[in-house]
Amino acid sequence: MVEIMGTIRFEPWGREIGTDGQSSLLRLARHHGLPIRAVCGGKKRCGTCRVIVEKCEGRLPSPSPLEREVLGDLLKQNYRLACETVISGDAVVRVPRESRDEEQVILSTGARLVRPRKPRPPVRGYAVKVPAPRLTDLAADRERLLSALREVHGLKRTRLDPLVLKKIPAVLRSQEGHVAVYVRGLREVVDLRPGSAPGPCLGMAFDVGTTTVVGYLLDLASGMQLSVQTASNPQAPFGADVISRISHCRESNGRLAELQELVLNCLNELVAAACAEAQVSPEYILEAVCVGNTAMHHLLLGLDPTHLALAPYPPVLQGALDIKARDLGLRISETGTVHLLPLKAGFVGSDAMACILATGIHQRAPLTLLMDLGTNGELVLGNREGLICCSTAAGPAFEGGHIRCGVRARPGAIDRVQIEPGTLEVSFSTIRGKAPVGLCGSGVISAVAELVRAGVLGGMGGFNQDLDTAGFRKGTEGWEFVLVPSSETPQPHDIILTQKDISEVQMAKAAIRAGAILLQEARGGVPIEQILLAGAGGSYMDPADAREIGLFPPDTPVDAVGVGNAAGYGACLALLDERKRREALKVARSTGYLELAAEPRFQELFVSSMFLGRDGGMDL
Amino acid sequence: MVEIMGTIRFEPWGREIGTDGQSSLLRLARHHGLPIRAVCGGKKRCGTCRVIVEKCEGRLPSPSPLEREVLGDLLKQNYRLACETVISGDAVVRVPRESRDEEQVILSTGARLVRPRKPRPPVRGYAVKVPAPRLTDLAADRERLLSALREVHGLKRTRLDPLVLKKIPAVLRSQEGHVAVYVRGLREVVDLRPGSAPGPCLGMAFDVGTTTVVGYLLDLASGMQLSVQTASNPQAPFGADVISRISHCRESNGRLAELQELVLNCLNELVAAACAEAQVSPEYILEAVCVGNTAMHHLLLGLDPTHLALAPYPPVLQGALDIKARDLGLRISETGTVHLLPLKAGFVGSDAMACILATGIHQRAPLTLLMDLGTNGELVLGNREGLICCSTAAGPAFEGGHIRCGVRARPGAIDRVQIEPGTLEVSFSTIRGKAPVGLCGSGVISAVAELVRAGVLGGMGGFNQDLDTAGFRKGTEGWEFVLVPSSETPQPHDIILTQKDISEVQMAKAAIRAGAILLQEARGGVPIEQILLAGAGGSYMDPADAREIGLFPPDTPVDAVGVGNAAGYGACLALLDERKRREALKVARSTGYLELAAEPRFQELFVSSMFLGRDGGMDL
Repeated sequence: MVEIMGTIRFEPWGREIGTDGQSSLLRLARHHGLPIRAVCGGKKRCGTCRVIVEKCEGRLPSPSPLEREVLGDLLKQNYRLACETVISGDAVVRVPRESRDEEQVILSTGARLVRPRKPRPPVRGYAVKVPAPRLTDLAADRERLLSALREVHGLKRTRLDPLVLKKIPAVLRSQEGHVAVYVRGLREVVDLRPGSAPGPCLGMAFDVGTTTVVGYLLDLASGMQLSVQTASNPQAPFGADVISRISHCRESNGRLAELQELVLNCLNELVAAACAEAQVSPEYILEAVCVGNTAMHHLLLGLDPTHLALAPYPPVLQGALDIKARDLGLRISETGTVHLLPLKAGFVGSDAMACILATGIHQRAPLTLLMDLGTNGELVLGNREGLICCSTAAGPAFEGGHIRCGVRARPGAIDRVQIEPGTLEVSFSTIRGKAPVGLCGSGVISAVAELVRAGVLGGMGGFNQDLDTAGFRKGTEGWEFVLVPSSETPQPHDIILTQKDISEVQMAKAAIRAGAILLQEARGGVPIEQILLAGAGGSYMDPADAREIGLFPPDTPVDAVGVGNAAGYGACLALLDERKRREALKVARSTGYLELAAEPRFQELFVSSMFLGRDGGMDL
Repeated sequence: MVEIMGTIRFEPWGREIGTDGQSSLLRLARHHGLPIRAVCGGKKRCGTCRVIVEKCEGRLPSPSPLEREVLGDLLKQNYRLACETVISGDAVVRVPRESRDEEQVILSTGARLVRPRKPRPPVRGYAVKVPAPRLTDLAADRERLLSALREVHGLKRTRLDPLVLKKIPAVLRSQEGHVAVYVRGLREVVDLRPGSAPGPCLGMAFDVGTTTVVGYLLDLASGMQLSVQTASNPQAPFGADVISRISHCRESNGRLAELQELVLNCLNELVAAACAEAQVSPEYILEAVCVGNTAMHHLLLGLDPTHLALAPYPPVLQGALDIKARDLGLRISETGTVHLLPLKAGFVGSDAMACILATGIHQRAPLTLLMDLGTNGELVLGNREGLICCSTAAGPAFEGGHIRCGVRARPGAIDRVQIEPGTLEVSFSTIRGKAPVGLCGSGVISAVAELVRAGVLGGMGGFNQDLDTAGFRKGTEGWEFVLVPSSETPQPHDIILTQKDISEVQMAKAAIRAGAILLQEARGGVPIEQILLAGAGGSYMDPADAREIGLFPPDTPVDAVGVGNAAGYGACLALLDERKRREALKVARSTGYLELAAEPRFQELFVSSMFLGRDGGMDL
């Protein structure tokens, strides 16, 4: 138990924080989610974390060399650096406007994303003073704690997570009955800490993708994002897409448990990395939210995903789920809760629901087509009058998979290509400007779009045979176009696009376009006013390229916008605001679902949508 | 997963049970809580488990030699022995009245104990047929299961223990959607099994005593007691009474966890032993109830008991508690729940509440004094108009502790003594008639009472110095009386009662009597109409001996009755009937508590109650 050496009031927020006489003001403030600016990240280099010590009744150390150098005459006005200053005893510290990092308090929002409101987190801290027991009042510790909560904060019928019971006797007696009580959903006490200043109350949001897992560490009270960590999904070696991962599970009995363990280890590593970066204990994380496609959701919970691959593709559950972190094996506080957002169907997961939350299309007027493009494409069409969704197996082409020279989006991956009409001279850009190693998803789309623009590819996807350029040649698998000769790449071969690559792109985009057309027909053919591109495959794609190859249904507006990792952002919204969870349930229930496997016209539309070009299909 | 080879309907109950083609009819019936009589316990010896096979569409083996011998001509009337008969395929089996063990279905009740009503257990099985998923109905497995529960059984707003989710896909598909669903408190699904015949739904009740732990395995549907197991509390080497065990916890940090682990191991061994005896899997145990004194309750939960030993002795909690078996570490079904009955105060535990439930004194007219005598004496006085309780530290004399030749109640322990007035010739009985090894609690009380009756002991507890008998002598620690010379015992010494032993008994009984008098005064001095003696110390004591030494308050009736392990019986009632749990909460809340430490007259009454003799105190 840390001994509290005094209380520091941070102005202008009026937030009182106990000091242990060892942590710097910056560290204390960050632990409690107060946004003090520190460009160097607290490494005592930048001098941006200036604060004014307005009052100090305890020990205040003399200025450090860095403070003398950076602050100079400001020292006389009681300015100090928060990173250098350690106070024992009671004090009042004012954080001036220039040192407040309030722009970054709230999760950064992309274009077209819903702005978060003031957090209304599921877990909140309450300060109470629990009276000591008396011979004339024989109420037990738990009962006195619960009546204090009822009397001071009006929290009725609150119960305790049984594992919190063990903390009660010591916590109630450590600070003369002053206790910070953390309550979930106004009903369940999930943590107790001694002292009157409720300490940090943190949460993690996870976007569990087939290929990549992202974890966001947030302060639940302020909404401040403390860390973002990314890792490859360690299940990937057991199947690049969900279907092959499901098949892997069916091979023998222990496989499902193995895959669950792998993804849990990955989440636990993200928790540890995020906590290390933010210098907080995982014990302070009392809530987590997970989103993912239905197969990832099932594997995370250890649920047999077999039936997701068999018509009619029923998931094991589709509503939301709360599960204790200890029951799942997630190493946050053992009394913390993991919330899984609802999903819609076997191939429309909670990631799609999170994308809807993030973009708010269910609350807005323009009829919007939301395309979450990965190995599986999830499409949502609608507006505040209603949504309808479907899922199409696009294949991995949008992520650079199944492409001869395709690579993941990593440094050196070609993400944009330009081909000069006439000369057919190729120029390109790569991620982080490194030497080119291959084409990532957006590079593939860009290359195909440029070949169409330059007249090299015809509408049916065939190369124009009359071309007379060194870059166009017949290879072992048919015609191919050289984008980068091997002399200009560290690879031992030319970076090329083959006829088969073109077909992969055609099939991927045809599946998406056919699905989008069927959604539009289901909405009575009303014109689409806006297109949002999300997900690993969608958000890095140039919308103009997507239009050029004919990804969109006919007569759609030019206005297509990439919105980044909308699923992860939606998970953060649901972490910070319990109203968003109810919203997700409503959305999941009310959104219509179109099972393309049951649509007789899908096959016909798929074939006609193979056509490359702005019109995008032969049906026009 | 056991393959089901047919369904057997047991008449007259109409209960349908799936057969695996390998288990005998007796075994099937017992697993499902049907009371078929089998005096030999199913060992194929007694021939009492006669049943009539009214219809059999599958394979019925020809009669065994035992069946031919025992049944003779009855074989022609389709009589068979349930222990010998294994049926594959559908069948109807009638259990005739003479083979029904309905007298023993319900937990055996002692005199003055509440008779259990038809069980209304917290967990019940429901049979449903869950429709298969269809392309036109995209409800997930969980959602289809829950709507079937709602539609067929009217169970609304039911949720699942998250760990049950893993079972869903296989169970829903194993018997064409026929599923037995086990629901706790009409709200939480805690188990799922394939097939339409709900299998056994079992429960364990535990009485966790300072010295002895008893576990009862019951069938929740029928109330049948399947096994009773007893073990010594393995914490005993770390302190014979609760105060020394609490002190042990305070010595170093890991001690509490060690004591918790010891008692949990003990409960887990009782579970394993009970399941082995009843030939059932611990997975079928979906509910447990624990009672114990407040210190045992805290140690079981791993709660710091330190403050129980410090005025004002506040417990960590006093209301009831539900905790998942997996969170406690009890190895029944991982989705099972452990319910801890409420307690009243630091020294009036849930065992006292269970005694009240068991004896029903809160619902009856006679003003009753309930004495639960162990190392700690818990006293309850009252009737349906109200109860008041107190706790007195009697010390271990009533259990044979702190007595020179005291032993636990085990074979060879002297439990009754007779001393011929005049000749002072001693005769005695021992437990199971074994050679005498020492005095157990009831033997000590019996010996003291006889010495009083014979005029050997005076009212102040001093030996009559004028005695002239070889058995009366001065030893190293003062006067002593020889009950059994060493020649008549396997012990290397005489079995004696010393002056110090007499003092121990005087102090123990004085504490109890003083507490009882104060309770009576708190009830306005109304005459006590009935005395019930419970607990290890109380229920084996001869009430006449108790009266002889002056254990009871003045002017109490002759009618004192031992009621056995009322606490364990009360735990069984609460296991079988959720209404009893609500009753326990009401009792715990409404029962008054008298803190003897705060009673100025206690000390004076304690001293005057040391007086030995029928009047029991010098105050008369």
